[in-house]
Amino acid sequence: MTELRGPVRVVGAGLIGTSIGLALARLGVVVELVDADPDTALMAERIGAGSRLVQIEPQLVVVAVPPDHVGQVVAEQLEQTDAIVTDAASVKSKPLADAARLTGDLSRYVGSHPMAGSERNGPLAARADLFDGATWAITPHETSAPEAVELVRRLAEASGARTVELSVEDHDLAVARVSHLPHLMSALAAGTLVDAPNSHLQLSGQGVRDVTRIAAGDPKLWTQIVSANSTALTGLLEQIRGELDRVLVALGKEEAAEELTTILGQGVSGAVRVPGKHGAPHIDLVTVLVTIPDRPGQLARLFADAAESGANVEDLRIDHSPGRPVGEVELAVKPGSVDQLVDVLTERGWVVHR
Amino acid sequence: MTELRGPVRVVGAGLIGTSIGLALARLGVVVELVDADPDTALMAERIGAGSRLVQIEPQLVVVAVPPDHVGQVVAEQLEQTDAIVTDAASVKSKPLADAARLTGDLSRYVGSHPMAGSERNGPLAARADLFDGATWAITPHETSAPEAVELVRRLAEASGARTVELSVEDHDLAVARVSHLPHLMSALAAGTLVDAPNSHLQLSGQGVRDVTRIAAGDPKLWTQIVSANSTALTGLLEQIRGELDRVLVALGKEEAAEELTTILGQGVSGAVRVPGKHGAPHIDLVTVLVTIPDRPGQLARLFADAAESGANVEDLRIDHSPGRPVGEVELAVKPGSVDQLVDVLTERGWVVHR
Repeated sequence: MTELRGPVRVVGAGLIGTSIGLALARLGVVVELVDADPDTALMAERIGAGSRLVQIEPQLVVVAVPPDHVGQVVAEQLEQTDAIVTDAASVKSKPLADAARLTGDLSRYVGSHPMAGSERNGPLAARADLFDGATWAITPHETSAPEAVELVRRLAEASGARTVELSVEDHDLAVARVSHLPHLMSALAAGTLVDAPNSHLQLSGQGVRDVTRIAAGDPKLWTQIVSANSTALTGLLEQIRGELDRVLVALGKEEAAEELTTILGQGVSGAVRVPGKHGAPHIDLVTVLVTIPDRPGQLARLFADAAESGANVEDLRIDHSPGRPVGEVELAVKPGSVDQLVDVLTERGWVVHR
Repeated sequence: MTELRGPVRVVGAGLIGTSIGLALARLGVVVELVDADPDTALMAERIGAGSRLVQIEPQLVVVAVPPDHVGQVVAEQLEQTDAIVTDAASVKSKPLADAARLTGDLSRYVGSHPMAGSERNGPLAARADLFDGATWAITPHETSAPEAVELVRRLAEASGARTVELSVEDHDLAVARVSHLPHLMSALAAGTLVDAPNSHLQLSGQGVRDVTRIAAGDPKLWTQIVSANSTALTGLLEQIRGELDRVLVALGKEEAAEELTTILGQGVSGAVRVPGKHGAPHIDLVTVLVTIPDRPGQLARLFADAAESGANVEDLRIDHSPGRPVGEVELAVKPGSVDQLVDVLTERGWVVHR
């Protein structure tokens, strides 16, 4: 059995690399921190993510540099050490192809993708618990050695994550679907608002807020991400363009209403497949709407009352339109708790709607 | 000065019509309920939204029937009564054009659009407070009489809403931008997930959940909505298709990275323009992340502690990846409250990140 003994060399002391360092430090694993920018490495060291100077050869190298440089750094580390090498990039085929072009034997390399992040970047945004309970995809390629796969799995588990093994190609198609395409669609929708008069934006509701939220992500980082996954993304974008053309042809033609309903129906079928909390489909939860005055302390009172009903709030959302003096809180609970929750809240004077 | 005295005839006792009835009943205004389905009208009457039989001629008629029938019912009501007539459809140019085709004098007609709703339909989902603080767009056309505009404004205010006056064309372009286009983009993104293997969906995070949420809306209702607004939507969809083509050409070409960054940057500029709570831009709030164990009562404890710090939580979001035993709550507060909030929460043992 392959044990994670360390040292672990982390190349790239940004959010992900430094968080891995902090997570391993919790277990006493020795971490070596390397960064092209000496100040960044120093900062990561100061917050306890590892040391800049470690005399012992690493057992494992984690490459956590910006997407464009991953393949090259993986190749360098394979040549400079005898360690097992992994990376943390969000796309897996391009780093593999890049590394294969630069070095011969890739048996010590196994790609991986810890699926956690933050809207903030850099070592100061790092946290020891960033990966606790998160999904960490492990993507062996054809020549990956079994002990290399096993060691990367140990790394993910030591960092607190739950591992999922996928092929390189499957992984990239999966993230194209559930991350990169949604990001591009969000960006394109948001892009149409740039020139909108303020009076138009005044009519915004929760829907446009939700759809455009992720479009606020760093354009340079996302250019690297989507460029690295261009093959998988191109197929999906062509599919979208085809559907868009169907919509454009059907729009406004009475005889084509069924065509539009079919396309929108596909959207419903897709939306309900997106897992909610804990991987469970959203449809397993029941939502209850509670009207809430916009004053300090009201949420505390609401959640105290909800807790007394014995219901665990699985998900929640505050829904508010601009200018509304009251908000609406949507509580999602298991079907078995809903009656009790509604009874207790109503009894305590809340305006509750199912 | 035009006063809203009533009676108000509501044609169409669905969610919107019945909620208007309930709101007016709060003020003692006599409401007449009309619905093509006698059971629906009876249900609305039973929950107190008005009466099915009112002997006095109406002062105002509110047409709240499905989008496809609005113009026709508006024309009928103009011919059958001397009342001022408005409607509640989410698109304004098509009902106006339909009514103009069917009747001569439209001076007693003023379109309007109460911007509130629910994922539920029908009279049983109705609420007297549905419009409290919501935006209610009023869209006079060229021949609308000033006293008609004034009376519709009174209706909106009596229902608890804040009014915004826009031309018919401006309104339709605005909702195309902030509602119909986001809905279609959400549906198209969600549609690509229909055939995805479960292993791909396992990698879903909060981003895809947000982008695809509104795609779950009723396909038949949305077909009517987007069809009625085809002119405004077609222009926007063609703009999207142009940008999509730019993305497809640029994707994967190193020399075109700047082009992608520009398109994604437009997305950032658009996303930050979407107003948050109370019409204020999101950037005026500071977010604080708190790690929270997935057990009943933890949210109550958190919000009680937050309230004691004196901070008003303006917005919140639970962020959780499938399979994570802990969740993360993002609290948005005014910049002036953030230090105190972080101090109090940290003191009480919460793991807080800015």
